[in-house]
Amino acid sequence: MSTAIQTSTATNIPTLPKSPSKYAPFPQVKLTDRQWPSRTLDKAPMWCSVDLRDGNQALIEPMGPDRKRAMYDLLLRMGFKEIEVGFPAASQTDFDFCREVIDEGKIPDGVTIQVLTQSREELIRRTFDGIKGAKRAIVHLYNSTSELQRRVVFGLDRQGIIDIAVAGTKLIKQLAAETPETEIVLQYSPESFTGTELDFAVEICEAVMETWGASPTNKVILNLPATVEMSMPNVHADQIEWFCRTLKNRESAIISLHPHNDRGTGVAAAELGLLAGADRVEGTLFGNGERTGNVDVVTLALNMFTQGVDPELNIDDINEIVRVSEYCTQLPVHPRHPYAGELVFTAFSGSHQDAINKGLKALTKSNTGKWEVPYLPIDPQDLGRSYEAVIRINSQSGKGGIAYVLEKDYGLQIPRRLQIEFSKVVQRVADETGKELSPADIHAAFKAEYLDADSPLELVEHSTEPRGPNSGARVMSVVMRRNGEIVTTKGKGNGPIDAFLDALRQGCGTDMHVVDYREHAIGSGEDAQACAYVEVKAGDKTLFGVGIDADIVTASLRALVSAANRAAR
Amino acid sequence: MSTAIQTSTATNIPTLPKSPSKYAPFPQVKLTDRQWPSRTLDKAPMWCSVDLRDGNQALIEPMGPDRKRAMYDLLLRMGFKEIEVGFPAASQTDFDFCREVIDEGKIPDGVTIQVLTQSREELIRRTFDGIKGAKRAIVHLYNSTSELQRRVVFGLDRQGIIDIAVAGTKLIKQLAAETPETEIVLQYSPESFTGTELDFAVEICEAVMETWGASPTNKVILNLPATVEMSMPNVHADQIEWFCRTLKNRESAIISLHPHNDRGTGVAAAELGLLAGADRVEGTLFGNGERTGNVDVVTLALNMFTQGVDPELNIDDINEIVRVSEYCTQLPVHPRHPYAGELVFTAFSGSHQDAINKGLKALTKSNTGKWEVPYLPIDPQDLGRSYEAVIRINSQSGKGGIAYVLEKDYGLQIPRRLQIEFSKVVQRVADETGKELSPADIHAAFKAEYLDADSPLELVEHSTEPRGPNSGARVMSVVMRRNGEIVTTKGKGNGPIDAFLDALRQGCGTDMHVVDYREHAIGSGEDAQACAYVEVKAGDKTLFGVGIDADIVTASLRALVSAANRAAR
Repeated sequence: MSTAIQTSTATNIPTLPKSPSKYAPFPQVKLTDRQWPSRTLDKAPMWCSVDLRDGNQALIEPMGPDRKRAMYDLLLRMGFKEIEVGFPAASQTDFDFCREVIDEGKIPDGVTIQVLTQSREELIRRTFDGIKGAKRAIVHLYNSTSELQRRVVFGLDRQGIIDIAVAGTKLIKQLAAETPETEIVLQYSPESFTGTELDFAVEICEAVMETWGASPTNKVILNLPATVEMSMPNVHADQIEWFCRTLKNRESAIISLHPHNDRGTGVAAAELGLLAGADRVEGTLFGNGERTGNVDVVTLALNMFTQGVDPELNIDDINEIVRVSEYCTQLPVHPRHPYAGELVFTAFSGSHQDAINKGLKALTKSNTGKWEVPYLPIDPQDLGRSYEAVIRINSQSGKGGIAYVLEKDYGLQIPRRLQIEFSKVVQRVADETGKELSPADIHAAFKAEYLDADSPLELVEHSTEPRGPNSGARVMSVVMRRNGEIVTTKGKGNGPIDAFLDALRQGCGTDMHVVDYREHAIGSGEDAQACAYVEVKAGDKTLFGVGIDADIVTASLRALVSAANRAAR
Repeated sequence: MSTAIQTSTATNIPTLPKSPSKYAPFPQVKLTDRQWPSRTLDKAPMWCSVDLRDGNQALIEPMGPDRKRAMYDLLLRMGFKEIEVGFPAASQTDFDFCREVIDEGKIPDGVTIQVLTQSREELIRRTFDGIKGAKRAIVHLYNSTSELQRRVVFGLDRQGIIDIAVAGTKLIKQLAAETPETEIVLQYSPESFTGTELDFAVEICEAVMETWGASPTNKVILNLPATVEMSMPNVHADQIEWFCRTLKNRESAIISLHPHNDRGTGVAAAELGLLAGADRVEGTLFGNGERTGNVDVVTLALNMFTQGVDPELNIDDINEIVRVSEYCTQLPVHPRHPYAGELVFTAFSGSHQDAINKGLKALTKSNTGKWEVPYLPIDPQDLGRSYEAVIRINSQSGKGGIAYVLEKDYGLQIPRRLQIEFSKVVQRVADETGKELSPADIHAAFKAEYLDADSPLELVEHSTEPRGPNSGARVMSVVMRRNGEIVTTKGKGNGPIDAFLDALRQGCGTDMHVVDYREHAIGSGEDAQACAYVEVKAGDKTLFGVGIDADIVTASLRALVSAANRAAR
């Protein structure tokens, strides 16, 4: 991960001794006849992606225009109908991106962009500049309503907080009337809903609805953010059910959830909140967002799918969604992330593998069209993935890993693509010998494959002619052994790699191009060895060579010879 | 992540067209008077760590003895009273580890080890060899009971599956009687409980209890695994409540949960399952385990703590728990992982930072002893962490990141420690100029600090004398400019870095030692440039130098000169 630019550690946290009594249990909701636990989910909610706003604001490196475009295009491909594109009044890049999608006609029919704003006149006016010309837009107004924030941040009573929300609503209504070419939908968030007294949340939302003139044909979206996840998901569901049942004119509102994940139960909070009556979910891909993240809409959607409900999002190639998401956020998707992680369709245990194989056979035979396989709750093919059974070469010792062994025991930091190339070599050796491979066996295989690849070519000696202050290319004299016979050759280039490749071309008939090169020290100090890795293109093959020497140049040339010899096999 | 050793992709998954109808909705539990939604958690459950078994079996690199010891010691420090140390009959390392903790007296008073076994005579006998000499041990018997596995894996009816469980229980009872020096506790898991008809789960558990002779003073642990998480967490809670209320002799059983996380709701399933009547939770640190992992006990414990409940686990230094866990599993803890991730106590948004600062001030003033800070649901100090406000240097462009800019725009892959060193330079420049830094500004600062560090020393020319086939050290002739004056010097070494350092020592009075070195290509092909990074020790300073050249040797020497000049400042 890259470094953050500037970090100041707050030193002024007062010291409160550690003790559970320092924390108050979250109050229960008085709801004796709750309905949600008996319900089931049978249709997809309205989805709104907040990747470009809530997700983006929490990144070490916020997305630049290219990454925003990549994310936006992905969201469209996935079928999101509502996309919060930013906070245009707070950020010039957000404003510019908003203008870009409108001015360049990048909002398909049926898709609505959403923009966030605080309730301040200049910000709301700037927001309307941002969305000018859009066919339809959701203007998302928020202010913080929690008891704690009213007290310590704003120093306002309930009425003061309501006044802020109502003033913003009035101005949005007025500007909407002045912009008839754009259909404006109002969304209001009592921010920190989970820390707000429920009766006050209803009161402020009703005030906004009344000011707006909400009706069943002009619904207000009421978004109830778990800005901080503060309670168990069943309490969150009680809050939502209480809110939905208490609100006047429920039919004039769309109830939206916006869970965060501070307690690791964001997905459950969304699911139970939908049972409790919500219509809509705001979240992000793989749960990126402030602190522990927003709720993960991919997991939510696939959870529905595995229960026979069409999630109304396209997740046919989850690996591509992971790739684009990792590119845009510069954060990894965890190897154990539901549905998406690289390990979730991998079976390590023999008994699991056996059960899966039997399940797959039974599936073929039964022909019911229903997916039923032990340990695989979803068909990996539905996500563009496959199932992998990992057979350990060295299961007893538990220390079989190639990269692990080579790094920990031999100091070799082999590049990822080389790991993949070498794993095939290891597998071949394991198949041939039929035995478990020890770390020494793996190292021996690496040495034999790469370091001892000294036929047909072998490097005997090289020297470079001194270069004057203003000279161009270096000239390298090389002595090689080819099939045992000495060959003397010369090459020119702007460095030893280049000159050596030229020398091989001139004297040995070997034509290679370097795709990648890296070199690192093994050990520390001047006695350290250098290990060089080159990835070369030789004809239509792309392959690696590796060389080790105390001399960084000799290590590189050895790596090139290793590659040339491997290409010749 | 390291490569897995040997991977075979199953090619025989039958093709079932993608459609929600391919999946059956999970059946609801008939439980009209459910009690769990009205309850709250007010005490910690019994915790059992399965890191060394369920967690370990799902690793790309299973833990070797050193990692097992490190994990076991950590679990003891955290205060786990029950630790599943392995599956001794299935794995020699598990068996050896079991013997080690018993024979070397590593089981403190009050701690019980647990061992897993299938219901086969030779495995159960071998298991008893593994625990011989322990004061107390939990023998954990399991067999798969789900409808699907009965049908497609075992081809047995209900009675056949009950017979397996009862036979195992009988043998364990017999061996326990023959081993009076060890108190044996029986744990039984109807594996795949979540896919098992509830009445059958109760039937088989009652058969096991009866065979064992369970009583309130000789309780059987009934572990109800969500081997695969198949339903919403409220349905899981209904299952647990139904089970607890239906089971005969409930007071003779400890009901244990073992959630997995296939739907991303493992934490919620555990919490609601505890409300529903369970007494005990099996899980792992940060949720390592098969596929999407086991339930995360750290999150569960801290969720309780923030609700004023003592979790009875020591989590005073969560960073250390992360470090040991990452060392043992060789898997990362995600940056957004609740409580533990590196980003979860970081505020990027200005309004969040403002609210947090006001909250902290109010906290100091109020002196209530209660933690109440917006956006920080827990005092980071309780976990040995701190709160960080990240001020973006370049918030408007959203492209401020140093490492990002240097890599994407300039191809420089600067090592992590150099990032940290350079971020201070950037901060100083930002403070001095008082302006936002563009990517070009950041690159200019990098160039000025490292690449243009050509005073007092400047490299003019170097050449290396040709080395014969059997010669030892290389001799390098170097022409330097020092404070503008030409200096000619020579050095010896086993490679150019070494020889050049010697030449600087001889001719320029500069004494440095190389701590680390790395070099990579910028661009591809023979025209690529090389960029070298050296970390050197010069006197009591450790610092970096960077050099770029088409020639890998010249790039390295430039890096050394850069370091020497920076050390001289």
